[in-house]
Amino acid sequence: MTNATTSTDSGIVQLTISPRIRRSPFYAATVRDGVSHFTVYNKMLMPLSFGHLSAEYQRLMHGVAMWDVAVERQVEVSGPDAHALVQALSARDLSTMQVGQGKYVAMCDHSGRLLNDPVLLKLSDRYWFSLADSDMLMWVRAVAAERGFAVDVCEPDVSPLAIQGPKAEALAVKLFGERVRAIKYFGCIETDLQGIPLVLCRSGWSKQGGFELFLRDGSRGDALWEMVKAAGQEFGIGPGAPNHIERVESGLLSWGGDTTPDTNPFEANMAKFVDVDCAADYIGKAALQKIAAQGPARLMVGLRLDGQAPSDWPLIERAPVLLDGRQVGTMSAVVFSPALQCTIGIAQVQREVVQAGQRVQVVTPIGLQGAVTQALPFI
Amino acid sequence: MTNATTSTDSGIVQLTISPRIRRSPFYAATVRDGVSHFTVYNKMLMPLSFGHLSAEYQRLMHGVAMWDVAVERQVEVSGPDAHALVQALSARDLSTMQVGQGKYVAMCDHSGRLLNDPVLLKLSDRYWFSLADSDMLMWVRAVAAERGFAVDVCEPDVSPLAIQGPKAEALAVKLFGERVRAIKYFGCIETDLQGIPLVLCRSGWSKQGGFELFLRDGSRGDALWEMVKAAGQEFGIGPGAPNHIERVESGLLSWGGDTTPDTNPFEANMAKFVDVDCAADYIGKAALQKIAAQGPARLMVGLRLDGQAPSDWPLIERAPVLLDGRQVGTMSAVVFSPALQCTIGIAQVQREVVQAGQRVQVVTPIGLQGAVTQALPFI
Repeated sequence: MTNATTSTDSGIVQLTISPRIRRSPFYAATVRDGVSHFTVYNKMLMPLSFGHLSAEYQRLMHGVAMWDVAVERQVEVSGPDAHALVQALSARDLSTMQVGQGKYVAMCDHSGRLLNDPVLLKLSDRYWFSLADSDMLMWVRAVAAERGFAVDVCEPDVSPLAIQGPKAEALAVKLFGERVRAIKYFGCIETDLQGIPLVLCRSGWSKQGGFELFLRDGSRGDALWEMVKAAGQEFGIGPGAPNHIERVESGLLSWGGDTTPDTNPFEANMAKFVDVDCAADYIGKAALQKIAAQGPARLMVGLRLDGQAPSDWPLIERAPVLLDGRQVGTMSAVVFSPALQCTIGIAQVQREVVQAGQRVQVVTPIGLQGAVTQALPFI
Repeated sequence: MTNATTSTDSGIVQLTISPRIRRSPFYAATVRDGVSHFTVYNKMLMPLSFGHLSAEYQRLMHGVAMWDVAVERQVEVSGPDAHALVQALSARDLSTMQVGQGKYVAMCDHSGRLLNDPVLLKLSDRYWFSLADSDMLMWVRAVAAERGFAVDVCEPDVSPLAIQGPKAEALAVKLFGERVRAIKYFGCIETDLQGIPLVLCRSGWSKQGGFELFLRDGSRGDALWEMVKAAGQEFGIGPGAPNHIERVESGLLSWGGDTTPDTNPFEANMAKFVDVDCAADYIGKAALQKIAAQGPARLMVGLRLDGQAPSDWPLIERAPVLLDGRQVGTMSAVVFSPALQCTIGIAQVQREVVQAGQRVQVVTPIGLQGAVTQALPFI
């Protein structure tokens, strides 16, 4: 099964574009700026690289990068029962949530399986679940209709553009004024940029700080991209994308990449975002209480691999992790860390293997590789 | 927005493979056989071509082709309330459905929106929804749990391999014996091939006839591919994929390609598969009854375009369809038909434009193109 030796072993294939796979409002701009690699996420094309992954990493770590993350689609909930529905869908106590706040929430099914790990934003008159890669619009509508909630549920015309990195705040101040310094993590304000309607949120899929500009009019994508790019010149801004190197170093969860359809939020290391003892009720609460009491069967850990992963070893499927020849987990991401100067990975392993310093082996296309477990994040 | 002139205008981009995008049990075999282009469907890589689209078309029309359609994932429903749940999810009267039967069904939400258009198979002890490209596992589980049905719902290890074309039946007879001739359209039997467990169904996403072999053990994908390939040599079998040319000629619906999230089954020309007057109740019935009474606002039609579509005009997003300068619909697929020797397309248009012979215009990257409407299918 793994003996095929063709171009697809490079980890790159040719994708045919079609109307079935949507394009972002920033698509034309990213093409102009040299986007080279994509993935498909929420049935949309998502830039993954502009051909210089290492430079993109350095820009994120030391400057500011701009990312087309329009694939983070929103499910919008409004109407009289909006709060009740959003609470029913979120494994977290939302009773004190204020307008302008955001929260990282686990959306689980009735058995506690993690269906998505969005950031939930509370705007003046509506909620947005800002989503990972699953069709949550159907899930939200199913629960709303089955329970008879008086709500409107839709996918609005909203497309985030992220600015990430240590100079992102200076850029945000230049664009939106000093007021942005007061925005807390996951805090958001409804504003505009020269008439382009936006929600500005201190968020983004990196640990390097920054903001996401939730564009509320897809026809203005090109204009917004150019405006941010022009303002960012003095900070050395350049295009990028959620960065594979940084996300492994920072231990950021990739839903669907690190998780499987049966993963619960505890197994995804989301315990601190799950409230099992609150008064609020939500779907999956009983199942999650039971898991919390027993402890999860698996957890996410970091792996520090012996030697370096060769550049011709893309991880195109999860790699088995062995302890004494027995499979105890799978590795879902691997990368050479410039910061640590070694090869690191993210794995889901059985609980008994979780303790830091456990020696394991990883099954790779180039043979068994030794590795040592450690807590996430690496940095 | 449409002025970018780069390699992505070819309609092809580089896709980075990752564990987030699953591979089929037939992946290694398709790589060996020269797969050249993919799409992503149900978060899996799906072969679209082996580099010879015209030859693949001829093989489908005159011989037999084998397709990796493992992306047609199944949602399996079993348990005491399986029939009740499956009926609640299907906009069609299933009261007389027998074991070994399949039915093309519209799965709709409470407002009548088409969520998926699977073939539903009734096996001896379970049902399978054989799905188009949306996360129906969540939808089915949501309804099951909210209504308290006693069912098990899962995505089983099942991956279809299609054999399609006029010689597919002879190949099926060679593989499975004369009994396959008695299988009716969408009929299925549970069987095996030299110990490889299968469901064999007379189905497939073409109008050229054939079968789908629903592999029930993903570890045997390579073996099954090679067995079918070897048996098919005398019939001139070769690899292919759901064929864009044939599907436009035949007017086959591409859910998510031809439809939008708000399309109802009547607008998708599925009226004859929707039962609004039956005794059975299902989600969306009231909404669909209302739409049936009023008539749908839009319908799918064929377009016969003036002139030929140049080969450098891939349809990467829906093209507006104009009547007297006013937009009356969108075209979602276009291709040069070898059978008709002209360029044809599929469009969703407002009801008043539906009558055959209506002259319209299509907005394309190379300018306005005249076209004439006609009923689907073309052939």
